[in-house]
Amino acid sequence: MEQEKTEGKTTVYSRTVMTEMIMPNDTNPMGNLMGGYLMRWMDIACAVCAARHCGSQVATASVDHISFHSPIKLGEVITLTATVTRAFNTSVEIYVEVLASEITGQNPRQCNHAYFTFVAIDPVSGKPTAVPSVIPLTNEEKKQYEVAVRRRELRLILAGRMKPEEATELQNFFSQLKPGNSVG
Amino acid sequence: MEQEKTEGKTTVYSRTVMTEMIMPNDTNPMGNLMGGYLMRWMDIACAVCAARHCGSQVATASVDHISFHSPIKLGEVITLTATVTRAFNTSVEIYVEVLASEITGQNPRQCNHAYFTFVAIDPVSGKPTAVPSVIPLTNEEKKQYEVAVRRRELRLILAGRMKPEEATELQNFFSQLKPGNSVG
Amino acid sequence: MEQEKTEGKTTVYSRTVMTEMIMPNDTNPMGNLMGGYLMRWMDIACAVCAARHCGSQVATASVDHISFHSPIKLGEVITLTATVTRAFNTSVEIYVEVLASEITGQNPRQCNHAYFTFVAIDPVSGKPTAVPSVIPLTNEEKKQYEVAVRRRELRLILAGRMKPEEATELQNFFSQLKPGNSVG
Amino acid sequence: MEQEKTEGKTTVYSRTVMTEMIMPNDTNPMGNLMGGYLMRWMDIACAVCAARHCGSQVATASVDHISFHSPIKLGEVITLTATVTRAFNTSVEIYVEVLASEITGQNPRQCNHAYFTFVAIDPVSGKPTAVPSVIPLTNEEKKQYEVAVRRRELRLILAGRMKPEEATELQNFFSQLKPGNSVG
Amino acid sequence: MEQEKTEGKTTVYSRTVMTEMIMPNDTNPMGNLMGGYLMRWMDIACAVCAARHCGSQVATASVDHISFHSPIKLGEVITLTATVTRAFNTSVEIYVEVLASEITGQNPRQCNHAYFTFVAIDPVSGKPTAVPSVIPLTNEEKKQYEVAVRRRELRLILAGRMKPEEATELQNFFSQLKPGNSVG
Amino acid sequence: MEQEKTEGKTTVYSRTVMTEMIMPNDTNPMGNLMGGYLMRWMDIACAVCAARHCGSQVATASVDHISFHSPIKLGEVITLTATVTRAFNTSVEIYVEVLASEITGQNPRQCNHAYFTFVAIDPVSGKPTAVPSVIPLTNEEKKQYEVAVRRRELRLILAGRMKPEEATELQNFFSQLKPGNSVG
Repeated sequence: MEQEKTEGKTTVYSRTVMTEMIMPNDTNPMGNLMGGYLMRWMDIACAVCAARHCGSQVATASVDHISFHSPIKLGEVITLTATVTRAFNTSVEIYVEVLASEITGQNPRQCNHAYFTFVAIDPVSGKPTAVPSVIPLTNEEKKQYEVAVRRRELRLILAGRMKPEEATELQNFFSQLKPGNSVG
Repeated sequence: MEQEKTEGKTTVYSRTVMTEMIMPNDTNPMGNLMGGYLMRWMDIACAVCAARHCGSQVATASVDHISFHSPIKLGEVITLTATVTRAFNTSVEIYVEVLASEITGQNPRQCNHAYFTFVAIDPVSGKPTAVPSVIPLTNEEKKQYEVAVRRRELRLILAGRMKPEEATELQNFFSQLKPGNSVG
Repeated sequence: MEQEKTEGKTTVYSRTVMTEMIMPNDTNPMGNLMGGYLMRWMDIACAVCAARHCGSQVATASVDHISFHSPIKLGEVITLTATVTRAFNTSVEIYVEVLASEITGQNPRQCNHAYFTFVAIDPVSGKPTAVPSVIPLTNEEKKQYEVAVRRRELRLILAGRMKPEEATELQNFFSQLKPGNSVG
Repeated sequence: MEQEKTEGKTTVYSRTVMTEMIMPNDTNPMGNLMGGYLMRWMDIACAVCAARHCGSQVATASVDHISFHSPIKLGEVITLTATVTRAFNTSVEIYVEVLASEITGQNPRQCNHAYFTFVAIDPVSGKPTAVPSVIPLTNEEKKQYEVAVRRRELRLILAGRMKPEEATELQNFFSQLKPGNSVG
Repeated sequence: MEQEKTEGKTTVYSRTVMTEMIMPNDTNPMGNLMGGYLMRWMDIACAVCAARHCGSQVATASVDHISFHSPIKLGEVITLTATVTRAFNTSVEIYVEVLASEITGQNPRQCNHAYFTFVAIDPVSGKPTAVPSVIPLTNEEKKQYEVAVRRRELRLILAGRMKPEEATELQNFFSQLKPGNSVG
Repeated sequence: MEQEKTEGKTTVYSRTVMTEMIMPNDTNPMGNLMGGYLMRWMDIACAVCAARHCGSQVATASVDHISFHSPIKLGEVITLTATVTRAFNTSVEIYVEVLASEITGQNPRQCNHAYFTFVAIDPVSGKPTAVPSVIPLTNEEKKQYEVAVRRRELRLILAGRMKPEEATELQNFFSQLKPGNSVG
């Protein structure tokens, strides 16, 4: 039965859409959504997506670099879409994209994106448990799936759980960029 | 007058300490603090620290990779300490460290750390404004100050605002790690 | 220019999906989501949908009868889908459906549905303003569109804004149900 | 002992008064209380009233049509008064009235009213349990008590739990309104 | 017209009743209402009562000693009743009493009481403004009215705004209690 | 082992610092922090400090008189510092001081202070339990330690748990202030 878990699922099965209105308490004195409040919503959307894919409770393991480009104003509406990209043994990587617009739909724009990772937790033992693999279908999903390995290497280095000299993918990626090397 | 702003400040001037108790609504069904709620507090602690150093309102520009190691339980207490590490023209990098323990002080442990960057905003124009430099005093502060340049390169690449082949510091860092090269 | 507003829009333009996790503070001492908290989310999902269709701010005018069938537990996830059904001069009717399941996706079920009406508000005058008509496409949308007139009559009676003897549609509907009459 | 439960109680025993100040996060961008937030307070006031009358935990079963007439502004104060009207086997109907005014008491007005129904829940079995009957005393209470049967029929039809042709009270009410019939 | 303000009002005009259900986030890890959350509700109930009596916005000036006797449990219901006791130029003293019981009404008990003072604020100048006097009617109200002077002396000493040697009422009260003196 | 508990601790062991930003929902319609919200934060900071000193869960027993001097504005930042002053059998007195400033650090000022008392609760029996004594080191700490006895007498009288004629310290303090007596 545990075997079933390792059978793959497509991303549509777990895709999660959240819509939130920016209320006064979410904003700073300049009337813009505070970064931390946005991260809280990103984490919840991704957690629901991860739990749906894994079929179990999950715990946030990490979040990659997030940039905050365009300010989101009081009264605007944001839509978060969370999609699983790839599974690694007992963890999954989730990609989340944030769109914002006025409540009327005017001034639509992409504001943020991020990669979160979650560990699947076995309800009985409380320990990490195996997760189903991801079956990428579209070209976009296949690209996300492939680059996920490189993102994971960087993540493990930044978390202090991999030595830079062991990150063979990243080393190749950067060394081929050195002046004198030609890059496609 | 704008000149004054570029005079340096030590880190003690803006260091910010926050203490929070984990309440039921901050936790997931397993009774652990949700990652997103912790990020919200980290963002607020860092924003206060950044505003104190810059002497102006600030907006979150980015947050670097965060790992979530040890779960934090309902009823535990966390202490966040935010310290400015370095200033770059109109932005500052803030380092935040999260300690957790039972409310009685038992089982103390470091749970997380992260680097946030903030842009200083001029109250009149709403545009980015120059910030004071940071004067590092201790060895720890000096190390944070120096490595900040490399973190910034990685951040700009990840945000799509610098091409990998322009990141000379990172290229050197990784290429010297290649098999066959000796690393000190 | 106001003319443009009365050009119709399809429902897909404004459909709004919200996902929420049931947190401890949303539940009563039996661990079930409180009805009032669910109504608050329904109102927000519908308000965003109405504002998108109308292209203006909106105010809740009424909500029709809501039944609460199956309890929703702490830690479960609900998905609200709000769709515009029909426009009436300066107001729109929105239909919202609530699905619930465990966070893992197990035990999925429809829990609630409701009809909300909203008035479109002109940003300058603060007065009600004309709204675009709705273009129903599917059979389901066409049925919702047609029955909307009868729902509106009942709503106006219940709000004390129409006398029962003026509700010709409802009178026909009920009188043909009297014993001795045959109903198709 | 279960018999005791079916002994009647007057309405004063369970009447519940709530006062709330409209805070920034309760309002939309036009500075008015959002309908959903008002419904949440109505539900809580009615739930407390129902639990006091039933002497047990209760769950919201339904809410009838609610109209939102006059906007309630940020900083105003609302007073909700919830009163039981009638009991039906294992459920009760609660009537709630909302008054609003400035915090100084100026501009007082009735804003809303609604009928909620609640099911009494036995603490041990988690099943519906018998509730005490209501003893109406004033003329107003007697009228509420009598019309409650007709409201219940409409409610059951709208919830899909009664066929319109079984609603004999409503059929009589509407058919006597047909043109040509004289209405008292 | 400002004269009108100094005409007295009875206490019934401004009496304020609040009912609140204790939700998970209001409680500590032992499942009891936290003292600080109760104080926040007491302050709001008293502020509404003060604003109603004064006919203006008000600001909390002080709160007297509060004792917390019996714990209030998760899921219980509290009722706060705030009553004006006496006015002093530009301020009023409000007495608030907190009753708690299970949601079913069982185990009713008085849990707390406190005296808050508020300053009335003129909406134009933002400065303190004259308030109407209080007309005590019952014996209980008359006693509260008389002892208010002594409470005020103690309050001014504790706030560092009156020297102990100027508090003639308190000096008399305590010196007559000295051993050897007879107290009625 | 219970013996260990009565060994003293210095105040630095339990000192607790909290930083909070004033958000819209914390303010009244004049844009100032409401007194009740400040009291809630004071209670939490003091509770954490008390639990750290006692090494056990604690419950708020009382709060002494609090005055609210200078208004704190929306967007300002407050820093609360809670320090234990003295232990009495199963309870501790905590002193909390509130500083406010603009988020930039400008306009710094002391706004409030208060004394809270907490009872230490044994986790198994749920009964009050012995607490460690406080070892005052600085002159300021020694003064707080000494006057704590007089504050406690006043507190017990105000809570109705000591008769005024038993408060020998307070009687001496006030009677020596009577006209005709010389005060140092």
